[in-house]
Amino acid sequence: MKRSIIFSLTAALFACTAFASTPQLAGPKAPDEQQQAPHSIIIMIGDGMGPAVVSGYRYYKDNPDTLEVEETVFDRLLTGTARTHPAPVSGYVTDSAASATALATGVKTYNGAISVDENKQPVTTIMEMARERGMATGVAVTSQINHATPAAFLAHNESRRNYDELAASYVESPADVMLGGGQKYFSQDMLATLKQKGFSHIERYQDLEGVQHMPVIGLFGEVGLPAALDDDTPNRLALLTEHALRLLSAHPKGFVLMVEGSQIDWAGHDNDIAGVMHETEDFANAIEVVEQYVRANPNATMVVTADHATGGLTLAKDGEYVWKPKMIADIKQGSRTLAEATYKNDNWQALVADALALQPTEDELASLQKARDAVDKKIMAKAIRAIVDDRTNTGWTTGGHTAVDVPVLAFGRGSELFNGHQDNIEIATQLMSLLPPKAGSPMPEASGVVVNDAPAAAIKENND
Amino acid sequence: MKRSIIFSLTAALFACTAFASTPQLAGPKAPDEQQQAPHSIIIMIGDGMGPAVVSGYRYYKDNPDTLEVEETVFDRLLTGTARTHPAPVSGYVTDSAASATALATGVKTYNGAISVDENKQPVTTIMEMARERGMATGVAVTSQINHATPAAFLAHNESRRNYDELAASYVESPADVMLGGGQKYFSQDMLATLKQKGFSHIERYQDLEGVQHMPVIGLFGEVGLPAALDDDTPNRLALLTEHALRLLSAHPKGFVLMVEGSQIDWAGHDNDIAGVMHETEDFANAIEVVEQYVRANPNATMVVTADHATGGLTLAKDGEYVWKPKMIADIKQGSRTLAEATYKNDNWQALVADALALQPTEDELASLQKARDAVDKKIMAKAIRAIVDDRTNTGWTTGGHTAVDVPVLAFGRGSELFNGHQDNIEIATQLMSLLPPKAGSPMPEASGVVVNDAPAAAIKENND
Repeated sequence: MKRSIIFSLTAALFACTAFASTPQLAGPKAPDEQQQAPHSIIIMIGDGMGPAVVSGYRYYKDNPDTLEVEETVFDRLLTGTARTHPAPVSGYVTDSAASATALATGVKTYNGAISVDENKQPVTTIMEMARERGMATGVAVTSQINHATPAAFLAHNESRRNYDELAASYVESPADVMLGGGQKYFSQDMLATLKQKGFSHIERYQDLEGVQHMPVIGLFGEVGLPAALDDDTPNRLALLTEHALRLLSAHPKGFVLMVEGSQIDWAGHDNDIAGVMHETEDFANAIEVVEQYVRANPNATMVVTADHATGGLTLAKDGEYVWKPKMIADIKQGSRTLAEATYKNDNWQALVADALALQPTEDELASLQKARDAVDKKIMAKAIRAIVDDRTNTGWTTGGHTAVDVPVLAFGRGSELFNGHQDNIEIATQLMSLLPPKAGSPMPEASGVVVNDAPAAAIKENND
Repeated sequence: MKRSIIFSLTAALFACTAFASTPQLAGPKAPDEQQQAPHSIIIMIGDGMGPAVVSGYRYYKDNPDTLEVEETVFDRLLTGTARTHPAPVSGYVTDSAASATALATGVKTYNGAISVDENKQPVTTIMEMARERGMATGVAVTSQINHATPAAFLAHNESRRNYDELAASYVESPADVMLGGGQKYFSQDMLATLKQKGFSHIERYQDLEGVQHMPVIGLFGEVGLPAALDDDTPNRLALLTEHALRLLSAHPKGFVLMVEGSQIDWAGHDNDIAGVMHETEDFANAIEVVEQYVRANPNATMVVTADHATGGLTLAKDGEYVWKPKMIADIKQGSRTLAEATYKNDNWQALVADALALQPTEDELASLQKARDAVDKKIMAKAIRAIVDDRTNTGWTTGGHTAVDVPVLAFGRGSELFNGHQDNIEIATQLMSLLPPKAGSPMPEASGVVVNDAPAAAIKENND
């Protein structure tokens, strides 16, 4: 019985997809049929993906065999920009927690806050509103699933640093789909509790295929996932997103999914342009997966934005009118793991040359030798990145965040709501306005904390 | 007779303004009346005004007495972003000449080119297309009027460095309104020729009021205008824009005006955040002047963008999550003129304290003393700016340009054409599509160089 329900839902989804992707072959749906199609909202966050990242990504992907600079998915779907400042108490430069809270709740708060307001009181998230409507919820991220951004969508806590409390809250009140890293935060007891609630638990990408239905927790890394440059599945976020959509879209009452390219930010903190571009590539692929879904489903909406910019990245430096990203595509290893490897290999010069796909100059070799002599992998990683910065002419001003406005992309139902400049809290309130009305209520309700600890799929399981 | 024509045109303009600003008092115009209203296009370029400038300007203008961060004109009118890369031969980082050529002609070219293509052949500008339609043309800028950006709208030359050739071409084939700096490039002979063609010639802002009609050349500085921080009329671009609109809008066949906040870029090259913010303030005021005009005139279109970003400006640096622009509003003098003044005054410490509206710390005084000992005003100006950077936590990576995408704002007829992301050449082609059809031609013509050296106002004068 269970399987047949799932198969019929999947069949319905595919039918709908086929319809929407070939509109010229079928007549338009009747308005009431459209009305009844399940609503779905996908909010995608490129952590640290400031304007220089999306501009730079276009040039990084430029095909050198054509005269044109090709358009990226960011160019195709851009609708405007968003300001990101936190509540006044934290000045103008946000952290990921305050910004994710803004995007999840529509409320400005202090840096570090996980969906609590300035008085540390919980504020309703779009995920809670979705569950009140019987919708399914999910997150797919490349950080640990209890990192600041997903946490602000799934929990309330006065501090992002309370990783264990956040993980515990996921066991108490889980989402239907939780895909990302974070094995070290989930004990066997916690996983057993989730299994009692009907959850599948997996830890390898290849096991995603076998998961036939929600709820599911997939923890694919001890903390975050391996960096895109180090992972044997570099497009791992696109993969997680594909499976999250497959599972969530089987739910008849629709869903809200949050997808985060978490490690764009981590590479930005490292001032690692190769990392930033490769993480952005995975995120861009995930966006295209969602774009296809939205194209095929009449009541779906996707919004893509960043929580802030990271690193003070600039596409040129030191007075030269040059940015040369081509070599980045050939880099084979992340700077951190490469730095570590140089200490385990006497022929480390060849290792670096191979990983960066370049022949270091004598000056470059001297700077690497000096860094290696310091026997500190952070210093070595920095020396490796300095070579890439100098050859690409990439600039950085900080290991932290900056206050520049971030890109906003939107597609699907209501996407025109995101045209122009907006405050990041407006992104949340506009998305909330696209939720279906609550049962018995003609209008979306006002703000207020919702307590509901049973995910939609678990309810379905129990009723099966 | 001449005066009465002008007065009746001005009266008609005001009538139109009064109508449009009080739409609730009058019925809508009949479609054919709307059709007949003169078309006007105002393209405004914030030279070097990258995304960090417009984001930073919002925080710089934030009223500390309110909890909210107030919206600026940039926020209100933003429709999207633009890529700025030049032709492939010049890589991904543009200069002002190639970017202004893109915006004036819709053609990508090499850095340094003034409305010529990669083969150094002239390409038609929107100003030439306007004149072919009997429209008036004008520029209002804070650089010399023969600087790269205005030059790309008014001339063709293989190099932006050919300032004398560019100035000479303005005498041969002038626009109806030319307001900016550049006295040193226009000899008495050249000005006499322009006067013979009917031009008024003025050199003081206060003489603008007395100019009753086009054509006019106003040169208010030897080279560029004084910096906003040093000018006794800090909102000089807003003033020039107001008068340019007053004069051009009297022309019955409409007009194209290019307005440039030229010195946002110059301050960016200096890595001078106080200069960038004060120049942006003047530019923002000029945008509001144009916004009012467009609001009042049915067939008017305005587009605002930047040619590129300058300086690698970032709103925070060095790992601190802080950007504190408040002190910038109190600064009274530009860093260059202040540096010069310190050499002419023994009590220079008090001079600096007064100009920056702060009490330098002992460390700051020591760094200033060291710079002053070098007896080099560039070093002194840099030391002054370093204090402002440190106190505001402002970052920079270059004295040149960067490749980040720039903001696009639009308002008025056809403004929806500028929604989303676009190539800077598309801004030109979209604006060209908004020109009225050529007499005898139902469609805008294809590209081709137009030779027409008589400005619209001069034709009117001659026929008077």
